[in-house]
Order: sequence, then C-alpha cells, then structure tokens
Amino acid sequence: MTDEATMRARLQEYIDAFDRSDLEALVELFADDAQVEDPVGSPVKDGKEAIRAFYRESLKTGAKLELVAPIRASHANAAAMAFTVNLNMPTGPSRIHVIDVMYFNESGQISSMQAYWGHGDMERTADQ
Amino acid sequence: MTDEATMRARLQEYIDAFDRSDLEALVELFADDAQVEDPVGSPVKDGKEAIRAFYRESLKTGAKLELVAPIRASHANAAAMAFTVNLNMPTGPSRIHVIDVMYFNESGQISSMQAYWGHGDMERTADQ
Repeated sequence: MTDEATMRARLQEYIDAFDRSDLEALVELFADDAQVEDPVGSPVKDGKEAIRAFYRESLKTGAKLELVAPIRASHANAAAMAFTVNLNMPTGPSRIHVIDVMYFNESGQISSMQAYWGHGDMERTADQ
Repeated sequence: MTDEATMRARLQEYIDAFDRSDLEALVELFADDAQVEDPVGSPVKDGKEAIRAFYRESLKTGAKLELVAPIRASHANAAAMAFTVNLNMPTGPSRIHVIDVMYFNESGQISSMQAYWGHGDMERTADQ
C-alpha cells in the first residue's frame, strides 16, 4: 500500500506541476490505466492518452491551484485535498472551489481521480 | 438528481447536528441502506443501525466539526467538504484534518459517506 507521506507528496507534486504548466510531469503521476472524472458527473477520461489530452486543455486556461487546507491521507490507498482554482475568464478573474480525491496503485501512481465541484462552486473573484 | 443547493444544505445540517450532539438528526440524514467508511480503509458501517451505533460512539468524544472551506457540490449526486475535528484527547486538545465525500439518493438522503484522514492528519493542537 502506498504510504501516507508518499500520497501527500504526490498530491503536492500534482499542484506544483500544474502551476508550472508542466504537462508531462503531471501526466507522469498517473498510472497507464488511470481514470479521471473532473468534475464528478462528467464523462470519465480513461487511460493516459485521454488524461494527457484533458490536462493539455486544462493548462491552456492558465489556471493556478492553491491549497486551502492540509492534504488529507487515509487508512488505505487514498488521499484528498481542498483547493481553489484561480483563473481568468472572459468575464474577469474567477475561481472554482474544488476537492480532489485520488486513489493510488501499488507503485505509488494515481489510479483514479475524482474532482468535486459544481456550478455553484464557480464565482467571479470580485464577488467576494 | 439531488440539486447542488440541497446537497450543500445537507452537509451543513450534518455539521450542525454533530456539533449539537443530536444523534437522531444526524442519523436521519442517511438512507436506510447507507454505507459509511470513516476513515477510508476501516470497516464499512453498513445500514442505519450500524451508522447510528457509529455516531453514538463518535458523539461521546465531544468532538466539534469546523468547516475550513466552502462545501463543494458536483455535476452529479455528490458533494464534499474539508473540515477540522476539534476534540479533547487524554494527551490534550487535538484536531484531525478530514475531507468527507457524500453521495445522495433520489430522495436527497445520504447513500454513502467516505471520510479521508490518516494517522498524519491527527495532531495535538499545541503542535501548531
């Protein structure tokens, strides 16, 4: 089982890779047969090529991720984190409140990711 | 599908019921066949009676839950929240950093709950 410290490190690496727009470092965190559901309720990106295509588009937005609380682990092969996505929309600076849950395989790679955010979690930054 | 506002309200009711030690209000949020895995990696509490027994013990600790970020919804029947559990341990005031993910049935009841927290998410409050 992937230990807590490793899972926390992987989630931090995910944020760091995203924020420096490092597509390959980001994709490298995932297992070949990983599945990504972002947001939960949207079609699942299945396998590394679909995941690469998804993050290639995501990084084009210039979004930056900001942790809002310590990364949580678990008593199994899963970890979770709450963060804010800061991005510039055509309507102005905006943010999305997100919680990601990630499960890991025996090699310490992400085997699945679910991102929890709804329409009501998007807001213009000026709203607050 | 349970709408975002309803799911957010249910998660807030969960926190409020927990913090006023209202066992029945807490249990009433769950479907009869709901499953609770708290923490993820521990045996699943299956069905309302097992869930009532679990929360009866949990409330005895006197723990209080404190949201640390807005409750997230999703594009499906799920919502998630990051919070801190504040409690008095024999070793002194402590806290646990937790993320709960809850799925809902068509009636707006919680059908499953997973709580993500590991050994490293527990700390004595004096540590910080």
